[in-house]
Parts: sequence; C-alpha cells; structure tokens
Amino acid sequence: MSGMSSPTPAPGAVKRVVHDGVQDLVPVEEPLEIRVDGDAVAVTMRTPGHDEELALGFLYGEGLIDNPRPVGLTEDFAANTVLVEGPLLRALDSRRFYTTSSCGVCGKGAIEEVHVHSAAANPGWDGIALTPKLLAALPDRMVQPGFARTGGLHATALFDADLTLQCLREDVGRHNAMDKVVGWALQRGQLPLSGSLLWVSGRLSFELVQKAAVAGAPVLVGVGAPTSLAVELAADRGLTLCGFARGHRVNTYTGAKRISVS
Amino acid sequence: MSGMSSPTPAPGAVKRVVHDGVQDLVPVEEPLEIRVDGDAVAVTMRTPGHDEELALGFLYGEGLIDNPRPVGLTEDFAANTVLVEGPLLRALDSRRFYTTSSCGVCGKGAIEEVHVHSAAANPGWDGIALTPKLLAALPDRMVQPGFARTGGLHATALFDADLTLQCLREDVGRHNAMDKVVGWALQRGQLPLSGSLLWVSGRLSFELVQKAAVAGAPVLVGVGAPTSLAVELAADRGLTLCGFARGHRVNTYTGAKRISVS
Repeated sequence: MSGMSSPTPAPGAVKRVVHDGVQDLVPVEEPLEIRVDGDAVAVTMRTPGHDEELALGFLYGEGLIDNPRPVGLTEDFAANTVLVEGPLLRALDSRRFYTTSSCGVCGKGAIEEVHVHSAAANPGWDGIALTPKLLAALPDRMVQPGFARTGGLHATALFDADLTLQCLREDVGRHNAMDKVVGWALQRGQLPLSGSLLWVSGRLSFELVQKAAVAGAPVLVGVGAPTSLAVELAADRGLTLCGFARGHRVNTYTGAKRISVS
Repeated sequence: MSGMSSPTPAPGAVKRVVHDGVQDLVPVEEPLEIRVDGDAVAVTMRTPGHDEELALGFLYGEGLIDNPRPVGLTEDFAANTVLVEGPLLRALDSRRFYTTSSCGVCGKGAIEEVHVHSAAANPGWDGIALTPKLLAALPDRMVQPGFARTGGLHATALFDADLTLQCLREDVGRHNAMDKVVGWALQRGQLPLSGSLLWVSGRLSFELVQKAAVAGAPVLVGVGAPTSLAVELAADRGLTLCGFARGHRVNTYTGAKRISVS
C-alpha cells in the first residue's frame, strides 16, 4: 500500500539488550536537536527514524511553517540533528522548545500560550459512516512493528475516509509519533487533513488534540483515556474525540454527529 | 498508614463528563505555573493536587534545590500557580522549563545538558530480599484511586525497605507523579531515598530513571517497557531497573545483584 509502513521497525528504532540472561529488544530513545537557520530551537527525546517528518510536523504543529511554503531540511542521522532552513511564518523569539519522550507542548511563554491557534474542524465528514465497532477495530488494519518487538512504542496512524491506512509512525513519545504523521502528510501536500482520521495507541492528552486540530483532522481516536482539557479543546474545535477504542466499542466524548450508532 | 494516600482522588483530580449519554469521570489536565522569585520558570500540564510537592520535586530533580535548604512555597490553587521563594542552588539562566502532561526534561540548553548530575546509587540494599514475584505484586499493596475511576492516570509509589507503601501520587503526567513523590519525601527530610524503592505504573523513560537517580533511589520498577537510554542511564548510575513488572514476573535490566531469583 502506498505510504504504508513496512512490517519492520525503522532502522535504529529498536536495540538489543540482555536481561535475566536472555536477549531482548527495547525501543531506542535518543535526543534529536532541531536547528533552524543555525539556532537550536528544539531538543526532543525520540525514537530514531523519520526524523525529517518529525521536524516538519513539530514546526507545523507550533504554527511555524505551513503547507505551501516548505522549508529546506537536512538530516544528520549520526549527529541526531535535523537542520531546517527557513523562512518560518513568524520569527522565533527567545523561547526554546525542549521535549522529552512524551512531551510535545514545550516552549510556551505563559499559560495562555499553551494554545496554538487552529481552525475549527471540517464540519462535514465525507467518509463512510463511522461506527463504534469500526473505530474499535482500527488496530486490525495496521501493523505496529516496533511495538510488536518491544511492547514499548506509541503509534499514530492516519486513515483516509474509507478507513484505508495511509501512514503509521512509532515513537517512544506519543507526540513525536503524531508529529511524524503530520510531517509525512505535509511532505505530500495533504494538509489540512480535512477528510482523514487520526488514531493513537494510547491516552488522549491536550497536546495530541491540539496537534490533530492544527493539522485539520476532524476525527481523533485513541485506545486510552482522554483528559479533561483534551475533551474541552476537542469540543471547542469541533473535533470528534473517541477514547477507550478497544474491544468492540468506543466512548465518544465530542462530535458524536460523525458516529453512527450501529 | 502514615502518609499513605486516601482511597479517594485528590480534590480536583477528576472531572465529570458525559459521553454516549452516560456520566463518566476523566482525569483533569490543567497547566501549573511554577514561579521562582517572581519569574515564571516552568509550566507543566498536570493533574491538580499536591502542587507544592510537584514544584519541590521538579526543582529538586533539576538540581535547583536540595534537602537541607528548603524554599518558601505558596500555592494558589485558583490561579494554577505555585510561588517559590529562593534561594536556589544555582542561578536560573535564560532557559525556561515547559512540560506537558508527560514531559519532564524540559529547558535544556543543549543535548549534553539533558543529563542532570546525580550520584551513583547506594551500592547496598538493606531491605528484604527482592524477588521477581514480590516486585510484580507491588500493585496489590496500593490503591490507585484516580486510575480506578478514570483509567487515565499514571502513578508513582514509594516503598520502604520492607515494601511498605510510604506515598502514592497520581497524575496525567508520569514525570509529575514522580516529582510529587520526590517532593513529598523532600518535605519530610527523607532524601536521598537510599533505602527505598520507586514504582511507576507505566513505561520507563530516560527522564524517570534520571529523577529516580537524582533522588537517590537504588531500585526503580515499572509496569511497562524501558527505553534504551533508560537502561543505559540506570547501568551508569548503578540502579536496579525492572520493567514489565506484572503477573508474577519482571524483567531485570540492570542491577540484578539486588534481586534474588526465587
């Protein structure tokens, strides 16, 4: 399938360790520095692989780049660095972004700046009727190669309107996995994701809803629980937010109009 | 039990929502601003409750305060702010710390600064013999009141040498839950935790190992997978690192000398 992940993890994404006398695999966590026009603007603890997508998705999610105006990118795998050549949509101020393996809303100057501007979600949904059963069964439509080997990687998946998998990315940081998928879409000119569904393997935090909203996705589905702020932001932006999508059912917290009760 | 959490969540930690026509509870996620001597130095997305502990544990983990030199603290619950009056161990430079609900190593000026200095762990362990079965059964010794109600809160627990629960804290951010426990111990003059064991409900990232190492705990046990960097840091600091502690067994990645194979 075009754009679909291979069933093997990205090179460098898993590492062999020995515990209890047996060999095993663990997910790799390493810092990645994102440099823009020579300045280090972000350090994120991430799983190597698709670093350019990660940098693009991160900058897009922070409102620093947009779709028709791509930036130059150079990846230095050995140095754990991605070099970005502008121009950015707005100047970087003295703030810096530093993110860990599960952090994604870093570098804000005050509480009110935690919000990044995003448009309201596409009010329509031109796909097939979404049902709880279909949403809970989305994992059957994908392979999570790194998780299968380590049990320790988050995933984000992008589905089109007929629930065909477009892209799946894994990372020790759930926000990184989301950034990689958004960066993948940006590289293909597919933003905003107005006819797409985003799925995440874990919990639904404020930051993930924000990234989905900025990317323009009308539907966000997670296997885990949402937070209060995630529900509030999804309601404000008109997203459909579904949590605990497992077994044969989901909880629909906002935007239930896009879900058919079958 | 002295210091043990009550079986109800902290006030403000869970919130009622309606989904699919039924009332339910979700974990609360709200920003907390930590101000030191008037300057905002950190914004963390956290679950309200034990905010002073969170601020203390965060500052301790960053090497900004230590045990015998406490700082003044004022909590403004309504404003989601904790005010800290110094002195700090070192001056704050222009770096700022911004952390999300699952971020904890923010505000570093460069990749090499992601590491915070910590001493090697206590080489001994004066407790009872730790066995895989005992470690995997630690959840039986605690109540996670917020998780029980929402399915969406991380926890960190502190056990003493005879595996008696000393403190349990919950948060949407796993690093916040750890910071709260460290802050609890700091307020009681119990740092370093050289005769204690830390348990976390989820995965074992670099940041959690670092916080445990800075707090001086010789043993860190998690229900989930460790990352490569978590294993490397634990080995470097002499910690015993156990992952996948569930059912009746654990994986012991480093420091196996403290575990008896029963």
